[in-house]
This record gives sequence, C-alpha cells and structure tokens, in this order.
Amino acid sequence: MAEKPLKIGMIGCGVVGTGVARLLLEQKSRLNAKARRELSLVRVAVRDAGKSRDPSLAKIEFTPNWNEIVNDPSIDVVVELAGGVDWTRKAVLKALAAGKHVVTANKALLAIHGNEIFDAARKHQVCVAFEACVAGGIPIIGVLTQGLSANQITGLRGILNGTCNFILTAMSESGASYQEALKEAQTRGFAEADPSLDVNGTDTAHKLLILVQIAFGQTLQFEKVDRKGIDSLDSTDIRFAMELGYGIKLLAEAWLNEGRLTIHVSPVLVRGNSPLAQVRGAYNAIQVIGDAVGDTYYQGLGAGRMPTASSVVADLIDIAIGRAQNTFRSMKLWSAEQPTLALLDNSLVRSRYYLRLLVDDRPGVLAEVTSILAKHLISIASIIQHEAAAEGDTSRVQLVIMTHVSKCAAFLAAVKELGTLSFVTGNVVNYPVED
Amino acid sequence: MAEKPLKIGMIGCGVVGTGVARLLLEQKSRLNAKARRELSLVRVAVRDAGKSRDPSLAKIEFTPNWNEIVNDPSIDVVVELAGGVDWTRKAVLKALAAGKHVVTANKALLAIHGNEIFDAARKHQVCVAFEACVAGGIPIIGVLTQGLSANQITGLRGILNGTCNFILTAMSESGASYQEALKEAQTRGFAEADPSLDVNGTDTAHKLLILVQIAFGQTLQFEKVDRKGIDSLDSTDIRFAMELGYGIKLLAEAWLNEGRLTIHVSPVLVRGNSPLAQVRGAYNAIQVIGDAVGDTYYQGLGAGRMPTASSVVADLIDIAIGRAQNTFRSMKLWSAEQPTLALLDNSLVRSRYYLRLLVDDRPGVLAEVTSILAKHLISIASIIQHEAAAEGDTSRVQLVIMTHVSKCAAFLAAVKELGTLSFVTGNVVNYPVED
Repeated sequence: MAEKPLKIGMIGCGVVGTGVARLLLEQKSRLNAKARRELSLVRVAVRDAGKSRDPSLAKIEFTPNWNEIVNDPSIDVVVELAGGVDWTRKAVLKALAAGKHVVTANKALLAIHGNEIFDAARKHQVCVAFEACVAGGIPIIGVLTQGLSANQITGLRGILNGTCNFILTAMSESGASYQEALKEAQTRGFAEADPSLDVNGTDTAHKLLILVQIAFGQTLQFEKVDRKGIDSLDSTDIRFAMELGYGIKLLAEAWLNEGRLTIHVSPVLVRGNSPLAQVRGAYNAIQVIGDAVGDTYYQGLGAGRMPTASSVVADLIDIAIGRAQNTFRSMKLWSAEQPTLALLDNSLVRSRYYLRLLVDDRPGVLAEVTSILAKHLISIASIIQHEAAAEGDTSRVQLVIMTHVSKCAAFLAAVKELGTLSFVTGNVVNYPVED
Repeated sequence: MAEKPLKIGMIGCGVVGTGVARLLLEQKSRLNAKARRELSLVRVAVRDAGKSRDPSLAKIEFTPNWNEIVNDPSIDVVVELAGGVDWTRKAVLKALAAGKHVVTANKALLAIHGNEIFDAARKHQVCVAFEACVAGGIPIIGVLTQGLSANQITGLRGILNGTCNFILTAMSESGASYQEALKEAQTRGFAEADPSLDVNGTDTAHKLLILVQIAFGQTLQFEKVDRKGIDSLDSTDIRFAMELGYGIKLLAEAWLNEGRLTIHVSPVLVRGNSPLAQVRGAYNAIQVIGDAVGDTYYQGLGAGRMPTASSVVADLIDIAIGRAQNTFRSMKLWSAEQPTLALLDNSLVRSRYYLRLLVDDRPGVLAEVTSILAKHLISIASIIQHEAAAEGDTSRVQLVIMTHVSKCAAFLAAVKELGTLSFVTGNVVNYPVED
C-alpha cells in the first residue's frame, strides 16, 4: 500500500450516504485492498449535524456547511448524495473548480446540468463518476462505457424506477388500485411522501437522458422526452393486459433507426414471458442491443441503501486506481465534441397498441369502432368484450382492442376520433405493446 | 487523435478472429473515436496463410508463423484466438516477455496456466485482458472487476456454455433425445464435430475457475471442480422436470459459506419461472450475489463470432486508453498474494434433490424406497409414479422423488443403497434442485 490515501468528503448522509459511510467504515480492509490505497472518509456535510444517526457512523466528523467539504484542500474526491439541482449544482461546480473529483448519484443534476458540470471537470482536469445515477446496483454505466464499447448501441429499454415497478407489481399481483399500491409502497419505504417525480416518469426520463448520453453520445433536453407516468394507470388495464398474456411496465426506451433516435417513457404492455415483464418489486432491469454483441440484459436492485452505495463505492475504487479518470478523458460526455443525431418524430414510430373504451352496450357499436380503425389502416390483432353481468343489462361495457403494428400518427388520429363518439364514455385509454 | 496508433497482432483467425478483424476494419472510425487513437491491425498468424478467407479480410497481412507476431517490435498487443494450451501458452509467454499486452479468449489457457501467465505479465509490466473468456458478449469480467468491486461476492451461478444450453433447450422444447439435439446443434453450427469438452462440462469448469479467480481471488486446480456434464442426460428427466415445473440447465456454481467455498458444475433442476430456467438456445446468463448489491443478473449471447469479438475489441479499447493496465495492476489475479479460502467438502453441502428410479411395478416397492430415504433423514417433497399403460401390465415404472433440503452425504448414501435393491433396474438418476 505505497500510495497515499484517497481522502473523501461527502455531501448528504441520508439513505444512500449512510450506506456509503458504513461500507467505507465497516469494510475498510477489503476496500483498501481493492483500491490499493486507503479510502479515507474525512468529513460529511449534512443539513443538521446534531441529528442522532446510525450508531455505526459515530466516528464520522459531521459539518452543517458543505463549503467545509469543497474548500478542504486535503480532500481528493467529493461524493454528492444530497440530491436536488440548485445548491448541489453550485457545490459540485465548486468542488470541480477546487480540483476535486466528484462521485454523484444525482441523476437530475446530470440530466439537466450535464454540459456545465462535465465542461467544468474537463477544464479542471478532474473526473465525474456516476454509476449510481442509473439503476442503483446494476453496473450499467460501466457496461455501456466499457464492456460494450466496441458496439454501436442500436437500442435500449429498461425499468429504471423501483418505486413505479413496486407499485405496478402490487397492482398486478394483488389487484390493488393505484392509490392502494402507492400507499403500500410508502408504508414499506419504496415511495417517498411526495412520490410525484417517480410516478409521473420524471425520474425515469432523467435516467434515460443519462443512458442516451453514453449509448448514443447525445445531449437531449428533458422537454424532448415524450413522457407518460403511471399516475393515471387504471387497474382495469392491468387486469385486461394479464388476460391478454401481458404485464404493464413503465419503460424508458431509446432506439436508433436509420440514424435517427426515438425516445420515450411510457407504461408499455410487455409480453408476460419476456424477462422485463417478470421483473418484480424494487428491481430494475435494462435490455441493451449492440450491433456486434446482439441482445444483452441486466437486472438488479434499482434503489435502496446498500445497492446504490455499492455503485458509489465502486466509483471511488475506480478513482483510487485511476480507471475513472481514463474513462472520463476518453469519453467526452456532455461535450460540444459530439455529433448530433436527429430525433425521429414519435408520430412516425410504428408500434402495436392496446386500446380500451368504455362503450354503451347496444347494436352497432363494434361496427362503428372497427370501421374507424379500418379507415386509419389500423389492423386488429385481438379483441375482448366480456358480456354484461346479465342479459338485458344495459349498462356500459369495456371494449379492449390490440392492434397489429401501426403508425403512431394514424393510431393517435383514430384514438382522437373514437373519443368523439357519442357511445364512448371518458378517455380512450391507450398504451404501446411490445414483446 | 494525438496519441500514436495501438499496433495489434493477432494469432488465429477462425470464427472469433474473423469477427475481430472485421470489426477493426469495418468500424475503424467508430472504434478509433472510442479508443482515442488508431487501432491498427498489423498482421495475423494463421495455420494456413494461403487459405481463401472472408473477402472483407482481403487487406490483412497473413503469416503462417506466430513468431512474426510476438517478435515484431512494432506490435503493442497480441490477440490470441488460436485456442489450445500447448504452443499458444508459449506464444503468449513470448509475447509478454517481449513487452506486449495480451488479449485472449482462451479460457482453458488461463484456467490451467493462469499463474504462469499472470506472473510473466507482472514481471514484464504488461497486462492480460480476457473479457471474451467467459460468456462471450456478456461483460461479466468487467462487472466483477469493477462494477461490483465494493462487494464481497457471496455466490454466483450461471449458464456458461452455449452448446450445452442449445442442446438442453432443444431437448426440452421438441422432446428430442440427447443424440438428436446434439446432431441438430452440430448442423446449425452450435456444436463442434468433437463436442466432448463442451458437453462433459470441461469448458464450463474452465470458465468457472476464471470467475472464481476474480470473484473470490482463488486459484483452484481443475481437478478440484466437482463436474458432471450433460452427455449422460436422459430426455426422460427433462420431461419429468417439466412436469414438476422445472427446467434442467447445466450450471456452474460457486458459493461462499462461512469462509468456505463450494463449487461444482452439474445439470441442475431450476424452477421454471426463474430467469435461468428461461435462458434459451445459445444464450448464457450469470447470477451474481454481492453482500452490498444483493442479487444481480446478466444475460447475453455466450458464443459466436460477433458477440465474442465485441468483448475482444472492448479489451483492445481498454488497453488503448490505459484502463486495462489499471485493472491489471490493481487486481493481482493468479498471484501468490491471494489468501487461500478453504474448499467446503461437497458432501457437506445441503440441497434439494431429484431422484429417478426404474422399479418393478409390484407391492412393497414404494414402502422400501421411502423407508431407506427416511433412514437417511431425507424428507420427501413430492413424488410421481404414473400408472402403467394398462391394468395388469407388469412392466417396470419410473418412480420420481423430489426431496426437501438434505445433506449431500446422506443423500448420496441413500442413492447408493437404493441402487442395490433387487427391484431397481439401472442407475439411480439424481440431480440437485434449485430455485
């Protein structure tokens, strides 16, 4: 152990920060052997330095002032785990300007301020490592930057938000409503008190932007992501999907077609026997397709204290032995050096679709619905209409249609037209369908 | 592109070598951008330099003499794809002694001569990169050396041989016999003319030894691997496994229990809804469990031209930017520096088991079989005996028993005793059962 210790300062000590601190303190000899030098946690900045904490952290020096981290000349690396994009942006930029490497789990920060942060790191010849930003314990950043580096990535899709997947799993396995499943996720610590950034797809979109950066070298604005969350998902659709042999998952997707990129975040019906459909609870999974390697698949816990800490500490080891610096220098992420791919207008995408309408139970309804679909050249793959509870019951019935591959624009035009029909009540629910 | 080109010499130009050469020639600008320098294929040594080859390789300089690769002072990296462990061992050692890095896909070479090769590389301050050795396109070496580096790996198991998995898939999906499925694999290029090293588990054991080296830092002798292949597998057992809700897969496993390591290669009954059970055809898959990250899973094509070439070229990019050298220096693989874990005697392992006996169809048989199991404290989880084709048919019947978790030693003692019974014909077939 000839090399001098790597001195680490940390900002934020919540769920993941506590995990990182515990790993560094409790697995010292193992981690030092991997890093070939001492990983020394010098100081941790927290909002309330007097708060009582996990007793395993008793030996840590806490400070309420993050400047004591970024201004300490003895600190080599700043681990930013506070979240948010306002003062954390300043703290990260100050750390980089002071010649410190940064390790972060803050996907929003990179998705929104990636260019500024990476330019600063390049200017000050330090590196930013961010394995923990996407899919918690799954080392997908390393896989894309290294393992698959010989490939042109042609597509990727994944389940990137553990909260949403927990809720969807609960809805499909217990028949719970969205609200009931959300409450269970909150009780069990899988959803925050305000879950909106998770359930509306924002967090998933941030992670997708980071994956798109690495896989396709593209810096995209958040607003460019066609995004639909699970917060308006009805358990009726989960039940019909299951009846059809599908599960509903919140997927982030990016596909390269003839030099154009298509991206979206949406609940998608995924065939029940596919690996993605079988990802349960707080697990994440990502499928990556490369032109040389073909179809690859990665699965693991997407969040939580120790899985995310595992990725943060892996980044620290990478910095200790110089590997992260090599990666950073070679990749030129979030830089002006990248060529720009055109985004394919999502209305030109072709997909299969699921469609559900609440219709009056009377003659002629099906004829009118199917003739509208035919007019838009949308071919029907399967259809479900269960009979009403009793003959003579004149209440409304659910009509569910699965289409063959159709143009998105034509499908949406048909959906719009179906929504105007007098015998249709409420929204025309629709989701993409994939294998 | 300020840095000088990385000059590459290759030994062997079969399936994978052709893929590597094609990637380097056809994707030049993309790969050079990733490597931040030119990846220049200087010369390729092949047995028959005059043989007609893929027209895309027309510009390559071939030589029949591998010394022209390892002795060329302009060459920085030697890619060894010839296979075998005799002259290739010499070629690799000569390349290392000449100060050249080595990239190899030769698992047998590392599994058998790892210490000698890695010591030579350390002595001459060059590195050996070997992502392509295990599971083709799955970047499992990178995942273990980097992504999961903060973890103590507590267990891993995987499907590491595409030939065997192709055969097992064909047997379970079409009901083919082992011989029929092997023939189909050969016809379709998934099995070699002499498939013995694949089907008897040798290749899987070599790969397991490499994974054990990285995950647990242990150099084990090949003879220490308790190894059973698929060459004696009967389609009867695949049928019964399916009836019980399981698939049969050839698994390589290594588990750490209280500081002791258990390793084996064997056909295993895996519960049908588990990811491993659903891996089809030439795909490979690996489950890795770490003490921080929890349960992770990786899947991709385990062999074939382009998937394996993808991993070889990723290693070349890693060397070009200096990352592979960092990894090599920090890991001390196959070195005397490693602590030695005790191997747990496999007879002490506890597992569930599958048991099949061909028995006479007469009174008292089941009583005697179950009393022998009871005597060895083996508890029965389920049992299948189908009735004979017709009442009064006195032919033999298959008796299949699934046990609860039992001690291996007790189970094997019971199997031995069952084999001596007068009403039992042939071998008592048995396999471990896992979730």
